[in-house]
Amino acid sequence: MNDVLGQLTALIEERRHADPAASYVAKLHQQGLNRILEKVGEEATEVILAAKDVREGDGRAELTGEVADLLFHCMVMLSHLDLDVGGVLECLAGRFGVSGLEEKASRGRSPD
Amino acid sequence: MNDVLGQLTALIEERRHADPAASYVAKLHQQGLNRILEKVGEEATEVILAAKDVREGDGRAELTGEVADLLFHCMVMLSHLDLDVGGVLECLAGRFGVSGLEEKASRGRSPD
Amino acid sequence: MNDVLGQLTALIEERRHADPAASYVAKLHQQGLNRILEKVGEEATEVILAAKDVREGDGRAELTGEVADLLFHCMVMLSHLDLDVGGVLECLAGRFGVSGLEEKASRGRSPD
Amino acid sequence: MNDVLGQLTALIEERRHADPAASYVAKLHQQGLNRILEKVGEEATEVILAAKDVREGDGRAELTGEVADLLFHCMVMLSHLDLDVGGVLECLAGRFGVSGLEEKASRGRSPD
Repeated sequence: MNDVLGQLTALIEERRHADPAASYVAKLHQQGLNRILEKVGEEATEVILAAKDVREGDGRAELTGEVADLLFHCMVMLSHLDLDVGGVLECLAGRFGVSGLEEKASRGRSPD
Repeated sequence: MNDVLGQLTALIEERRHADPAASYVAKLHQQGLNRILEKVGEEATEVILAAKDVREGDGRAELTGEVADLLFHCMVMLSHLDLDVGGVLECLAGRFGVSGLEEKASRGRSPD
Repeated sequence: MNDVLGQLTALIEERRHADPAASYVAKLHQQGLNRILEKVGEEATEVILAAKDVREGDGRAELTGEVADLLFHCMVMLSHLDLDVGGVLECLAGRFGVSGLEEKASRGRSPD
Repeated sequence: MNDVLGQLTALIEERRHADPAASYVAKLHQQGLNRILEKVGEEATEVILAAKDVREGDGRAELTGEVADLLFHCMVMLSHLDLDVGGVLECLAGRFGVSGLEEKASRGRSPD
């Protein structure tokens, strides 16, 4: 699952300047920051509702899908403001003392 | 930046059963789903406010930190409901036709 | 402005059982609690964005309209759960030691 | 219950310039718009969670209290931006064709 976010970042960046009629990402950028933030707020609410609806053996796929929606719209927001999720992961790595690079190195023992 | 989320998932899982007095993650689990979802809602609001406060050359580190907070609390929520962010990334990969595995393979020279 | 909320409560209650094709209130009830709460979340986000966009002499009507949307959808939510905004006002009156009834009474017996 | 919002508006306005160490309203104003909006976002999340937790004969007082919190913090926000809930009620009255004044007049024609 590793580089999904990296690839998705590239895809979002690529579609940023696409035709808004053909690309949802381009359309969001065209609609502007407030519309993107409305989507972030909507998706956060849907995450909360989906989490409350998880029952034994039920509702987990829906919640996973809602978190995916939230993360995706956060990534579009970051792109709109000339940032990307890489900086977010660096921030998390710094806070929690984890590091993809070191982990790879320790696992890897060979150049990537 | 690649495996930060994988390592952070392991860390959150490990701390889930730690002493709530010593671990913020354990404390959130102990406080329960509503408290975790309150944090998700709070962090989403802080993301929105930080995004509105981004100016030329200003506010980007704050926004990155707020998205990190939001993502972290989403990961604790997923853990609380016996899910993890790996499923979210798979979901995104499926939707957008990207795949860490394929990308690794194409870059990789050998199956992982 | 006094009895707007009382009248609006009556209107919402009356439309609760109207034809969902003809009444937005009836449609929200038919769509169910999650849809109503999604609207509450959306409107709260729009209030926050509108408040951030208030400038000298600009944006106040928009903010007022967004708070009206939020309050209206909260009232529909209360109705959906067999509550109404009267209980909310009583709660506020109790917390803050104010009372429409007393105020009316005190205003009654002598010029204000 | 009628003039609770009017009195609460006056109270909030009065406390706006009180000692922040002694008044929660004054403290919120001192902390500024972002802090007030964080509270609006938090309370909206708590409304949503409380609504999801309503069961037969249970949870309604909690929900009523959370809506009161949300409305109160919206009123502080309006005050912070030199607005008040009276404008919100006028907006609702205009949209829904209800009017406290007319309703009073039609009912009234004599002091009540």
